[in-house]
Amino acid sequence: MDKLAHRKATTTLRILDSAGQPIAGKEVSIRLTNHKFLFGCGAFDAIDVANRNVPEDRLAFQEEKMRLFLDVFNAATLPFYWARFEPEQGKPQTDELMAAANWLRERNVAVKGHPLVWHTLTAPWLLDLSNEEILQAQLARIERDVTAFRGVVDTWDVINEVVIMPIFDKYDNGITRLCKELGRVRMVKEMFAKARECNPEATLILNDFNTSINYEILIDGCLNAGVSIDVIGIQSHQHQGYWGREKLEEVLERFSQFGLPIHFTENTLTSGHLMPPEIVDLNDYQIDDWPTTPEYEERQAREIEEFYTILFEHPLVESIVNWKFSDDGAWLGAPAGFVRKDNSPKPSYEVVKRLIKEEWSTNITCATNDDGTVTFEGFMGDYELSFDDCTVAFKLDKDTPTQQNLITG
Amino acid sequence: MDKLAHRKATTTLRILDSAGQPIAGKEVSIRLTNHKFLFGCGAFDAIDVANRNVPEDRLAFQEEKMRLFLDVFNAATLPFYWARFEPEQGKPQTDELMAAANWLRERNVAVKGHPLVWHTLTAPWLLDLSNEEILQAQLARIERDVTAFRGVVDTWDVINEVVIMPIFDKYDNGITRLCKELGRVRMVKEMFAKARECNPEATLILNDFNTSINYEILIDGCLNAGVSIDVIGIQSHQHQGYWGREKLEEVLERFSQFGLPIHFTENTLTSGHLMPPEIVDLNDYQIDDWPTTPEYEERQAREIEEFYTILFEHPLVESIVNWKFSDDGAWLGAPAGFVRKDNSPKPSYEVVKRLIKEEWSTNITCATNDDGTVTFEGFMGDYELSFDDCTVAFKLDKDTPTQQNLITG
Repeated sequence: MDKLAHRKATTTLRILDSAGQPIAGKEVSIRLTNHKFLFGCGAFDAIDVANRNVPEDRLAFQEEKMRLFLDVFNAATLPFYWARFEPEQGKPQTDELMAAANWLRERNVAVKGHPLVWHTLTAPWLLDLSNEEILQAQLARIERDVTAFRGVVDTWDVINEVVIMPIFDKYDNGITRLCKELGRVRMVKEMFAKARECNPEATLILNDFNTSINYEILIDGCLNAGVSIDVIGIQSHQHQGYWGREKLEEVLERFSQFGLPIHFTENTLTSGHLMPPEIVDLNDYQIDDWPTTPEYEERQAREIEEFYTILFEHPLVESIVNWKFSDDGAWLGAPAGFVRKDNSPKPSYEVVKRLIKEEWSTNITCATNDDGTVTFEGFMGDYELSFDDCTVAFKLDKDTPTQQNLITG
Repeated sequence: MDKLAHRKATTTLRILDSAGQPIAGKEVSIRLTNHKFLFGCGAFDAIDVANRNVPEDRLAFQEEKMRLFLDVFNAATLPFYWARFEPEQGKPQTDELMAAANWLRERNVAVKGHPLVWHTLTAPWLLDLSNEEILQAQLARIERDVTAFRGVVDTWDVINEVVIMPIFDKYDNGITRLCKELGRVRMVKEMFAKARECNPEATLILNDFNTSINYEILIDGCLNAGVSIDVIGIQSHQHQGYWGREKLEEVLERFSQFGLPIHFTENTLTSGHLMPPEIVDLNDYQIDDWPTTPEYEERQAREIEEFYTILFEHPLVESIVNWKFSDDGAWLGAPAGFVRKDNSPKPSYEVVKRLIKEEWSTNITCATNDDGTVTFEGFMGDYELSFDDCTVAFKLDKDTPTQQNLITG
């Protein structure tokens, strides 16, 4: 039984010349150029590269990092933390983020904005406002940014970590204040409605690190309240140790109940020592040095391979985003990336490259039949068919026609 | 500051004779005859007494038990467990329960039916049905019983223990099967809608033993999905030990966020040893003897006094129902009642009698003014004013007119 059957489709191509005549008996190469599945990373470094607003040697370093990233991945998350996007009310960093988003899109990378609403890193000036003003400011932010980025960023983590949002108590913030008043479900409802209104075709994601029944009941409540959640986002920061197959399968089973697509939006599996288990808020773990080591790099490579495989084998999962591509600048200083601080690739980089570009890819050579057709089964996504000087692009998806004509010449 | 101000109201009565003339300077007695607040117990014994379908000495015993109950309480919960109400499809125990409900109402006791929907003690014959058939059968049950009892039982625990309902795994049952498919919120929505349709004026309660964030998020989701929950029901089976003031206040605070009335629907504080803390499902605790002791009866009396006081002082709480009135036949054999197995009252019986009938009651004597009026503040509820041979009834509530005329003679 093919565990990846749900990732594939079969189609028949009929190769025609410019006069519409079938090209028979021709050896053609058929190659997946971009997965339908979204394999991504946090790609905040694209901001430096797109805007070229850092010193020259840093820029070269960042460009090399992005080159290594582009060699494997087809999806990226860009930062829209309100505190950093609009630290001064009325002066959003739209241009910078637009440049980064466009830079990625030109390179066939799907871009997601993260997040529109969160109690952490939210606009500090909300604290001066009444709750009603906070609500209006947050909705206005969504309206402005979802509208401005429409066509460039069409996937959004609309609201992040709602389970804890109204009871978050590390520091006062405008979003927790508002969520206490509105309640969780109404908060989600208002924010999703506004995002949906501004970009009806967008993919809107509800995201959380909480994978308990709390999150299940929240999703259930939101769906029954008419919230148009497109995707369930699940964080998997595993600084304290790999969840393991059993827990991962259990989480997948529980969140499959809704029949909605699932994205693993923020994965971390480090190549360093494990964070102690008694730490509850990962942000509390502050150490000077958290090195990557050869032994733990091997562990990371094994865990990444198993983790990615289990997820790719699950029919509802449509994306895996590793939170960090590189150890350089990683949250908490953790060795959380696929490449080291000096851009050298770890074994885990080679693993994901092999899985995404080889094992889970389609690259075949075959000959067209007398009637110019060739039938094949391949991983879903964007393709190129080529022979001689000729290259033509086509798509393979679940709803691809059983037969498609490709006009060449 | 009067911590019970929210339980009281002030009104002016103008006492008139049959000719409409004020009765001045008359000494009158004003007495609360029935609390607005619902102080209740599970009163399943009323079934025996109303139907007189048990042996004579058992009947006498039950009648004495109910006499002791009626001397203190003004609310009762009657059992509508589907497995017992309709063990054979099409033959519900309507007459028996109707007799019990009427017997209680004739004695000014407000009656609640418990529960319409639950995964435990549900109709066993559901297991032969498809999920769609289970849904229809459950809705038909609600329609039949809520309609039949309208005017007699107008308060219902519509659905019980929804947090665990879809993942309950002790034994297969039709309600868990259905809830797995519909999801929690939709399950609640369907059941409440049917109950509401059949008795628009009913008080409909959502009930649970789960007081965690799970239950908060569930309520939030249901309210946002448009479910017309009138009251939040909270079970407090404290076989393993009194929650204590801190936990009780914390639970009250969290469930106050909705602004809905709260009923403590199933309280247990025993006068015996504590159930071990490692027991998760209370039903797993099976012992031969769980005696009431003088030492623990004193403990029970203190805990009951504090528990009832904290709840009566909280403005959103509108009812406390002690699950068992008597140790006789108590769930798990626990000494959970106010009276012992031989109907003798424990210290806790004297405590609740004192609180409900004396400390939290109004019984005054005063003289009418020259204009026949008398103004007083009292606990809300039904009253009798009497003087000489004359008795007249009136109500005192938050929305009572500032002045009411009472025609006597």
